[in-house]
Amino acid sequence: MKIVVVGLGVIGGSFTMALKEAGYNDVYGIDINEESLEKAKKLGLIREGFKNGEEVIKSADFIIISLYPRLVKQFIIDNKSNFKDGAVITDATGIKKMFIEDIVNILPENIDFVFGHPMAGREKKGIDFASSQVFKGANYILTPVSRNKEENLNMVEDLIYKIGFKRVKRITPEYHDEMIGYTSQLPHSLAVALVNSDVEGRETGSFIGDSYRDLTRIANINEDLWSELFLGNKENLLKSIENFEVELDKIKDAIKDDDKETLKEIFIKSTKRREKL
Amino acid sequence: MKIVVVGLGVIGGSFTMALKEAGYNDVYGIDINEESLEKAKKLGLIREGFKNGEEVIKSADFIIISLYPRLVKQFIIDNKSNFKDGAVITDATGIKKMFIEDIVNILPENIDFVFGHPMAGREKKGIDFASSQVFKGANYILTPVSRNKEENLNMVEDLIYKIGFKRVKRITPEYHDEMIGYTSQLPHSLAVALVNSDVEGRETGSFIGDSYRDLTRIANINEDLWSELFLGNKENLLKSIENFEVELDKIKDAIKDDDKETLKEIFIKSTKRREKL
Repeated sequence: MKIVVVGLGVIGGSFTMALKEAGYNDVYGIDINEESLEKAKKLGLIREGFKNGEEVIKSADFIIISLYPRLVKQFIIDNKSNFKDGAVITDATGIKKMFIEDIVNILPENIDFVFGHPMAGREKKGIDFASSQVFKGANYILTPVSRNKEENLNMVEDLIYKIGFKRVKRITPEYHDEMIGYTSQLPHSLAVALVNSDVEGRETGSFIGDSYRDLTRIANINEDLWSELFLGNKENLLKSIENFEVELDKIKDAIKDDDKETLKEIFIKSTKRREKL
Repeated sequence: MKIVVVGLGVIGGSFTMALKEAGYNDVYGIDINEESLEKAKKLGLIREGFKNGEEVIKSADFIIISLYPRLVKQFIIDNKSNFKDGAVITDATGIKKMFIEDIVNILPENIDFVFGHPMAGREKKGIDFASSQVFKGANYILTPVSRNKEENLNMVEDLIYKIGFKRVKRITPEYHDEMIGYTSQLPHSLAVALVNSDVEGRETGSFIGDSYRDLTRIANINEDLWSELFLGNKENLLKSIENFEVELDKIKDAIKDDDKETLKEIFIKSTKRREKL
């Protein structure tokens, strides 16, 4: 199977590494950054790298696209006459419903796009931060659409397990976006707001422990990618933020009222829920 | 120097371990839990353990109290006629201003209480989770009061460095509480509210990555301790929550308005701030 990874950033690069470790050796890369291509080739992650992928796409059986959401769409438009008949494409995009509608509208009939989302990432950009380790034991979500062929869904799922993921779940794009709004986008919003709410001029660095460090790691955020992800899932994210605010208000009210018993109940609830995870 | 550690929980236990590693060998323990005393003795962390510490306190040069805030006060009241003349006491309490006022009011004249806060902890309770490792490289805050003797402040500071902390800062109790409201109590509030805002019945566990895991670790929280800490620092914590809400609202508004540029600016700000830490 000839595999092409499009976008050798932190996620695409990690895919090439995980593919290599899993024994896939007919892998090629496409990126606009020549250095990334050179690095991937030097590390033996790809057979060849291309800035213009037209030729290699023509013979690709399986294409993994790791680009920003709007660039995925552009890639499909640019290559719609290049794809091999029956080729399978997958993506790593963190939003699904609106994104899939956009893609399905422009996708050639004879191409099967299996939409997916590896629940693994790093806050840094670029192939220098890529690592197959981030995939090990992680969750993966597939969001099948009616035109997907079962054999292609199975092929992708099989490959996902082989490159180290622990669990693959098939769900609807709607449910994906609802859950991701809560488990990924809301935490990113909180981390960003936490860091930005610091009062200017304090020596905060001298007063932090592991909790602040852990909660703010993802405040180091790729602004191009995440502004797209947030706006591509706005209703779900806003709902998650509102649910969060209700719970934060309960804590605020209990503090204002010196209501120790309610505070304890709130803490007992969060402890139980966290232990179940 | 004869040292007594009062309260062999996760923090007190960690103190005994770090003291042992640093070569202090005249160390005793007081705890109401017999198993904790036995474990500490078996591990060679203390020479002897006591459920009733009256006798050992009479000859103690330095007492480290690792109890819940209100129990520290009770311990001082119960033992005010037991302390050795000139004994030095320190604590590990996460709030300072109100707490110090309470203690100073009841403290015998000939005892020097050096108030401190190790910026290191674990979300689990008890000596089984104690480890000297959590102290290594961590920050420590001392909040001197006018009656402290410089030689005693220096003695405590010296010991803190010896047991593995990287940085000791001396600040006012007021500044401590302001900073801790932001760097510790606010993150705990956010983690708790995040976990509690999950919608009942969803299979959240299948949709989480490292970010959710990191942000919710401290939602597993000791309700007795943290309800005391929150209510003992209510004004600062409420102010921190309000500042946070202002920043979260900026994110919400940008999402509602499809304002990608503002979102990006917000993310660039948080990234810069996080990288500086």
